[in-house]
Amino acid sequence: MKISINADYMLRAVYELAMNKTDKPIPVSQIARNQHIPHKFLEKLFSRLKEREIVKSKKGKTGGYLLKKGPKNITMYEIIQAAEGEVNIHSCLERSKESNCVSVDDCTFRIFWSKFNHNINKFLKSYTLDDFLTGN
Amino acid sequence: MKISINADYMLRAVYELAMNKTDKPIPVSQIARNQHIPHKFLEKLFSRLKEREIVKSKKGKTGGYLLKKGPKNITMYEIIQAAEGEVNIHSCLERSKESNCVSVDDCTFRIFWSKFNHNINKFLKSYTLDDFLTGN
Repeated sequence: MKISINADYMLRAVYELAMNKTDKPIPVSQIARNQHIPHKFLEKLFSRLKEREIVKSKKGKTGGYLLKKGPKNITMYEIIQAAEGEVNIHSCLERSKESNCVSVDDCTFRIFWSKFNHNINKFLKSYTLDDFLTGN
Repeated sequence: MKISINADYMLRAVYELAMNKTDKPIPVSQIARNQHIPHKFLEKLFSRLKEREIVKSKKGKTGGYLLKKGPKNITMYEIIQAAEGEVNIHSCLERSKESNCVSVDDCTFRIFWSKFNHNINKFLKSYTLDDFLTGN
């Protein structure tokens, strides 16, 4: 059970924006270089962060990205969800009743994975980017 | 972020033993068939469960496996750990100070991944096989 490379990159990209104490946007190329993230891949990640209104962009030569909200208003859940989509520890949680799963919908496995997942999401929703930055 | 196929198989294998209400061991072949797990792979998983004293084996024609402890005395942490080794959500948690990580040992990333990991392990250690079976 490991965090995905997407989530790892996403957090490092958001960290770079959070460390910017100016109102000047940071170019994607700079973040890619600093965090050793492939440039094209990073552009895709930023478009997902923008869709979710976690970051805002400025176009042009001095363009790049800035956080759209303060670190206290961004949770780790939002960042990881932007990277991975819904956080589901087991693929059975994505299946509907109509799927071909051999187990019934409310089987003990599904109940356990669902509780495990809930526990993970609860933690991620309670942990803000500000907590992350201050190591709280 | 997904649970490994090893952990998924391991839980299904232990479930089969837990559902056995007799004192007769269950053959690996029967569990492999019931749970759609490759036989050779399942044998490896059982040897790990045996090493950790979660199951016991009986050799011979009527041989197979039985739980060694009651379901109240087996945690989900033990089962998943037998499948995956130490549960570490991010590979940086496995690195020592001497590694080539570009970040220092107590960086904010490591602190976060460590807290996230602690949260996961705390949940898994508190959830017994008995809770799993009863859906608590």
